[in-house]
Amino acid sequence: MKVSEIGEFGLIARLSQMAQQTADQHQAAWQQLIVGIGDDAAAYFSDNEIQLATVDSLVQDVHFSFSYMTWRELGSKSITVNLSDIAAMGGFPRYALVSLGLPGDTEMENVINLYRGMFDIAGKFGVAIVGGDTVNSPFVFISVTVIGSSGVKNRGILRRSTAKPGDKIAVTNSLGASAAGLEMLKNNLKFKPKSAKQLRQAHLTPNPRVAEGQLLVEKGVKCGMDISDGLIGDLAHICMESQVGALINVDLIPVAPAVKECFGQRALELAMTGGEDYELLFTASPTVINKVKKAIQCPITVIGEITAKKVSKVTLIDSHGKKFKTKKTGWDHFIK
Amino acid sequence: MKVSEIGEFGLIARLSQMAQQTADQHQAAWQQLIVGIGDDAAAYFSDNEIQLATVDSLVQDVHFSFSYMTWRELGSKSITVNLSDIAAMGGFPRYALVSLGLPGDTEMENVINLYRGMFDIAGKFGVAIVGGDTVNSPFVFISVTVIGSSGVKNRGILRRSTAKPGDKIAVTNSLGASAAGLEMLKNNLKFKPKSAKQLRQAHLTPNPRVAEGQLLVEKGVKCGMDISDGLIGDLAHICMESQVGALINVDLIPVAPAVKECFGQRALELAMTGGEDYELLFTASPTVINKVKKAIQCPITVIGEITAKKVSKVTLIDSHGKKFKTKKTGWDHFIK
Repeated sequence: MKVSEIGEFGLIARLSQMAQQTADQHQAAWQQLIVGIGDDAAAYFSDNEIQLATVDSLVQDVHFSFSYMTWRELGSKSITVNLSDIAAMGGFPRYALVSLGLPGDTEMENVINLYRGMFDIAGKFGVAIVGGDTVNSPFVFISVTVIGSSGVKNRGILRRSTAKPGDKIAVTNSLGASAAGLEMLKNNLKFKPKSAKQLRQAHLTPNPRVAEGQLLVEKGVKCGMDISDGLIGDLAHICMESQVGALINVDLIPVAPAVKECFGQRALELAMTGGEDYELLFTASPTVINKVKKAIQCPITVIGEITAKKVSKVTLIDSHGKKFKTKKTGWDHFIK
Repeated sequence: MKVSEIGEFGLIARLSQMAQQTADQHQAAWQQLIVGIGDDAAAYFSDNEIQLATVDSLVQDVHFSFSYMTWRELGSKSITVNLSDIAAMGGFPRYALVSLGLPGDTEMENVINLYRGMFDIAGKFGVAIVGGDTVNSPFVFISVTVIGSSGVKNRGILRRSTAKPGDKIAVTNSLGASAAGLEMLKNNLKFKPKSAKQLRQAHLTPNPRVAEGQLLVEKGVKCGMDISDGLIGDLAHICMESQVGALINVDLIPVAPAVKECFGQRALELAMTGGEDYELLFTASPTVINKVKKAIQCPITVIGEITAKKVSKVTLIDSHGKKFKTKKTGWDHFIK
């Protein structure tokens, strides 16, 4: 069996199983562990707070291309994707470590610009870049680790395993612009300047929802994650981890206006299955959702409900209650 | 200017400078930071202890080759090099995150063996593997982050910047076997089975000096690091960071017996400049060194002394006081 056959999520499930089998509950590290392999970030107790840690790698010509992205944008995005994982736990990002693979003939100016992008976004979110390593590599890859915390003890975190039947399913802001931006950049599509700029920014310099994640926890939300692999696929992870089903009204999905304008009929598909929006997907009781709506600055849209039936499945309907069919569900790093 | 011209250490110096320029001392992360870019691991305060974090990447055909290394050995070594960085701070390793780049056609069996190697060594040192990501990549790379702690508040850590004139310079165990092992494996050299096995193990499954690092701190050592890029080059980092010089008697350097046997006259060079021994290099007063010698199980050899003169320089002499010359000083990831 090859990795491309089992897929990223099959692989992660297998590794998580191995970790559980080898875990030694006599060791301090395992005793203090709250969340291991399989959520947005790992979480473990240290004295007075929950510590969070996450890592994400970007590989040249797999996750990005210099044909449409600057070194500075790459630096910024490599930090952002990890900030988004901390946001997805409702945490406070604090420290970053950067492991950088570079061909020897890389211009120093490019490396400096890469780090400028990193320091910009790190500074904006109060994150100190405190270490890492630089290695020779035939092509560019960046592996960033971000360490954060829950702030104070007894403050909760957002999990994938805590959705409850009856919870409403909601998302921050709007979806689809990042995937639309990628398609525009890759295929050199021409749109009106304003829309083109929005799509470009959505893909190259997305905004991690750090303050929003913290606010969700504060208002009582227990279940949430960031949308990095596509709404439907990511929601399926919540359903699996929480052993519940999800019923989504596709007509309620907040498709980004620029995506509607530029991609017409394909807009909904991009919003449902396009990855890398880095918006937050969460579930909570209607009362809690209302509290969130009142307190948060960005738009919150309820798109469906968690069900006790159809465990691990995401069911799509339209406003008339008719079943909605889609081919693709999301992004897998190995299955194309 | 290309990265290969400025070199790894030039690059790190430049990035460290950028970090200092952009550091915002009003942010909590910067206020709690003890050690940033440039030491074996980052260190920062959290509640009652010092937290440590380090990352290291291994790239296929740059840092390892499957022509002489199994997937399981690779897994083990990818964790070990990071445990060694925590050992180099005298800390307790706790959690690991693994970012893995794999071609889609990688056999699952190989990935399972890779993780077996990781779980083996992690379990042995009380480390829980708690997360990571797996990405598609044209070749294999592994980026491992290990997070640890100093144990309790007010317990020290080993720094590179704390060597003092008059300190003795010492190393654990013996040197050169890893570099000799690499040369044997790469060039398919034939030696006596016992020596060949020792050299192979030294390179492929080195032993991180975690307990030894902790004991150094306990006995009062303040300055130390692990030998990953070669004794002389690594000692030069201590000299630079501490603004001192070092005088080494090369006849005192503990060359591994198997290296002497297999490489004859070249043995000393391998012990001085070969990388990846992952032994500890440290400096302390003669009194402290004696305490360490009495308490530690592995051999400790004093090889020289820290001097106030010749700041940032490592001077090599032999037992007759004659200057000793060497061409190479150590390993740089970019300058060949």
